[in-house]
Amino acid sequence: MQHFLSAKDLSADVIQSIMDRAEATGKPLTGDSRGHFAANLFFEPSTRTKTSFLVAEKKLGMEILDFQTETSSMTKGESLYDTARTYEAIGADLLVIRHGRDTWYEQLAGRISIPIINAGSGKGEHPTQCMLDLFTIRQEFGAFKGLNVAIAGDIKHSRVAHSHACALRTVGANVYFVEVPGFKDETLDIPYVTMDEACAMCDVLMLLRIQHERHGGSGYDAASYLADYGLTMERERNMQGHAIILHPAPVNRGVEIDTRLVECDRSRIFQQMENGVAVRMAIINLLLEERRVLV
Amino acid sequence: MQHFLSAKDLSADVIQSIMDRAEATGKPLTGDSRGHFAANLFFEPSTRTKTSFLVAEKKLGMEILDFQTETSSMTKGESLYDTARTYEAIGADLLVIRHGRDTWYEQLAGRISIPIINAGSGKGEHPTQCMLDLFTIRQEFGAFKGLNVAIAGDIKHSRVAHSHACALRTVGANVYFVEVPGFKDETLDIPYVTMDEACAMCDVLMLLRIQHERHGGSGYDAASYLADYGLTMERERNMQGHAIILHPAPVNRGVEIDTRLVECDRSRIFQQMENGVAVRMAIINLLLEERRVLV
Amino acid sequence: MQHFLSAKDLSADVIQSIMDRAEATGKPLTGDSRGHFAANLFFEPSTRTKTSFLVAEKKLGMEILDFQTETSSMTKGESLYDTARTYEAIGADLLVIRHGRDTWYEQLAGRISIPIINAGSGKGEHPTQCMLDLFTIRQEFGAFKGLNVAIAGDIKHSRVAHSHACALRTVGANVYFVEVPGFKDETLDIPYVTMDEACAMCDVLMLLRIQHERHGGSGYDAASYLADYGLTMERERNMQGHAIILHPAPVNRGVEIDTRLVECDRSRIFQQMENGVAVRMAIINLLLEERRVLV
Repeated sequence: MQHFLSAKDLSADVIQSIMDRAEATGKPLTGDSRGHFAANLFFEPSTRTKTSFLVAEKKLGMEILDFQTETSSMTKGESLYDTARTYEAIGADLLVIRHGRDTWYEQLAGRISIPIINAGSGKGEHPTQCMLDLFTIRQEFGAFKGLNVAIAGDIKHSRVAHSHACALRTVGANVYFVEVPGFKDETLDIPYVTMDEACAMCDVLMLLRIQHERHGGSGYDAASYLADYGLTMERERNMQGHAIILHPAPVNRGVEIDTRLVECDRSRIFQQMENGVAVRMAIINLLLEERRVLV
Repeated sequence: MQHFLSAKDLSADVIQSIMDRAEATGKPLTGDSRGHFAANLFFEPSTRTKTSFLVAEKKLGMEILDFQTETSSMTKGESLYDTARTYEAIGADLLVIRHGRDTWYEQLAGRISIPIINAGSGKGEHPTQCMLDLFTIRQEFGAFKGLNVAIAGDIKHSRVAHSHACALRTVGANVYFVEVPGFKDETLDIPYVTMDEACAMCDVLMLLRIQHERHGGSGYDAASYLADYGLTMERERNMQGHAIILHPAPVNRGVEIDTRLVECDRSRIFQQMENGVAVRMAIINLLLEERRVLV
Repeated sequence: MQHFLSAKDLSADVIQSIMDRAEATGKPLTGDSRGHFAANLFFEPSTRTKTSFLVAEKKLGMEILDFQTETSSMTKGESLYDTARTYEAIGADLLVIRHGRDTWYEQLAGRISIPIINAGSGKGEHPTQCMLDLFTIRQEFGAFKGLNVAIAGDIKHSRVAHSHACALRTVGANVYFVEVPGFKDETLDIPYVTMDEACAMCDVLMLLRIQHERHGGSGYDAASYLADYGLTMERERNMQGHAIILHPAPVNRGVEIDTRLVECDRSRIFQQMENGVAVRMAIINLLLEERRVLV
C-alpha cells in the first residue's frame, strides 16, 4: 500500500492489520518517524480531523508543515499537483490532503512519490474516519461478521457513508441506510429501513451530521427532523441493550440526536475521537514502514 | 487549584507561590511536561498573549495544538463545551482559552477534567496578565504591601483592570483608578483620582490600552486624550524617582502615552512581555503538577 | 554580518561562504540552534518561502513562532518596530520578516539586537530567493564567472530581479533582462535583449512569475504573452544544450512557460525549492553563529 486514498482499495486483511497496529500504538514508540515531515494540506475547513492528524503525527515524533488556504499564495491558480510536488520538493515525507473535489487524488497517482493520505475528498470518501469507526466497533464487539450497522442521515452527500458502505461490507457486516426523503443515494446497493426499524435491530447506530444549510433546501427544520429521523429518547429506549451509538461529530444537538444522549452510556462519540488518533498513527506508520521497505 | 480562571480564586499565598515558581523558571527544566499537549483555543484575535503561552509551553517541552477560529469547522454552531471536550478526547492535557463571553468558564466547570487557563474572558478577567504584572512589580519592589498602584484608561471595559483590582488588594497594595469620563466602572469599590494626582503619588502607574474604535463613541480623539488623561512628558517628570510604568500592550503611541516614554528608564513595558513567559510557565507547571498529584 | 537584508550588502566572499555552508547542510547537524526560537513574521501571503524557512528552522532544531496577520491583534495600528521588539522580548532569537514596504528593514536597523532576515520586501528585494538561485546555478556550473544569465518577466515590479541584478554581477556573471513593454526597469543599468536572443545565448534562463492581475492592466493576455515573451517549445529547442531553466514559482503554466516544459530535462524548478531549504539553513546558521561569537 503506497497511498491511503479510498475504502475500495482496502481488503479485509489490510483493515484488520490497521486495527491491530492501532491497538498497539499505546506502547512505547519505536521512533521510526522521528524527524520526518508531514504536510497537512487542508483546502477545506477542518479542526477535528486536522487536529487528530496533528496529534497522531506528533506522537509519532514527526515535524508538521501546516497549510493555511487563506494565507497561501499557492492557491492562486496553482494546481493541486504543483502544490503537492512543491511540498515534496521542500522536504515532506508524507502528504495528508483534504480537498473539495470527489476524486482529487486521481491527478496525483503515479506522479508523487511520497505517501498520500485522503483526509476527505468532496462528497466522495473519508477513509480514515471510516477506519476509526471500524476500530471503535471492533473494540466493542471484537469482530464485524454479521453485525447490523445502520447509518442515518444525509447519505447522499456524505463521504463518510460512502467509505463505510464499502469497508463495512468488506469486513462482513450487514449495512443498512435509514431512509430520509431527499437524502437517498440510489447509486449504492444498500437496503433502506426506517429510523424506528434501524434503532430496534441494529448493533451499531451510526448518525451523520446534518448540515443546517442543506436542511433549508430539503425542507426540514431542526425540531421536526429530530422527531421524524433523529435519535429521540424514545427510540434510544427501543435499542438493544448492547447496541452503541456513533457520530463523526461535530454533533448538531437536538437535530440528529437528543442533546441528553450525546454522552449517554451507549454513546461512543468521544471515544471515537480518542480512537481517531490511534488509527491515524497506525495508518501513517504503515505507509512510512512500507515505503522504507520499498526504497 | 485545578483550573486558573479568575483573580477572585487566588489567595495571597497562591499568588506568592506563582511568583516564586516564575522566578525559578530560568533554571534547567525538570522536563516533567515533555510530550504533554497544550491546546490553545483563541476565539478572539491575539498575538501577544498567544505567543507568550506558545513560548512558555515550548520551553516546558510541551506539544502545541493550535486552534484557528477562521478555519475551524468547530465554530459552526458547536458549543464551547463540545469543543473543549473534543480537545480533551483527542489528547490535550491542558486547555488555554480566550473567548468573548465574560464568564465562559462557568459552563465548563466540573465537566472538563484537564486543567483550564483563562487567557481572557470578554470584559471580565485576564488573570495571567494580572500575574505577570504583579511579578514585574515584585521584581522591582520585592513586596506589595502598601504600594500605591494607579490604573489609568478604559477601566469599564478592561478585563485587565478587573483582575488587577482584585489581586492587587489581595496582596495588600493600595489600588487607585484614574477618572476618565465614560470609562468609570461603578461596580468596583476603588477610589478614583485624577491623572495628575495618580502620577504624583503612585509607585506603579499602570496604563491600559485605549481602543480607537471606542474612542470615537466616547467623544475623545487621540491628541486630546493624551493631553487630558495620558502620560505626557510633563506628568512623567512629576512621578516619584523610583516609580515605574506598566502597559499590557500593544501601546497606542501618542494616545495613552507619549511615544518618547515607551522605552524610557522607568518603563517596564518590554520587561512585562519577557516576564509573561516565565509567569505562564509557572502557572502551567503548577496546574500540571497538582493534577499529577491528584491523579 | 548581523542581519541578512539586501543583496547590496553581500560581497562575493560572503556569497561563496553561504553556498559552501549550504552544501554542507546534508551532514549531521551540530545542534547549535536546538531550543532557539525563530519568529516568522509574514505580513504578506506566502506559502513557499514560509514553508521553506519552516523546514530549514526545524531541521536546525529550532522552535517556531508563527505569525498570522489575519488573527493578530498586533497589526491594529502597531508599528513593525513594536511588533519586532515584542517578539524579541517574548524570546525570539531570530526574526524572518516579509512585509509590503520596499525598505521596511531600515526602521529596524540598530534598534533590534537579534538577527533579522529579509524574506521579501515589497517590490524591493528578496535576497534569500536570490541565494538559492545562485546556489542552483553553482551546483550546475561550479562557478559564476562569465555565465550569461537572462531574466525574463515583469522586471519592474520584481523584488527577485532586483536582488539578482545586484548579486549576479557581484559574483561575475553577465546579466541580461528580456525586454517586455511596460515591464522595463529604467533605474537598473542592465542590457535588454529579446526573448529569442535570450534563449539562444544564455546559460541560465530565469523566468519570473507574471501576475494575472497586472496582466490586465498591461494589456497582455495569457496566450499572447506566452507566444511573444514566454518560453515556448520552439524557443526551448533553440537553447544551448547545457542551458538550464529557473523559476521562483508558483509557475503560471501556459503563461511564462509552456506547461510541458515545467519538468523538462533542463528545468531546475523543483530543484530550486529543495535547495531553498539548504540555503536558508546556511544563512540562519551563519547569522546565529556570528551572533554567538559577538556576544
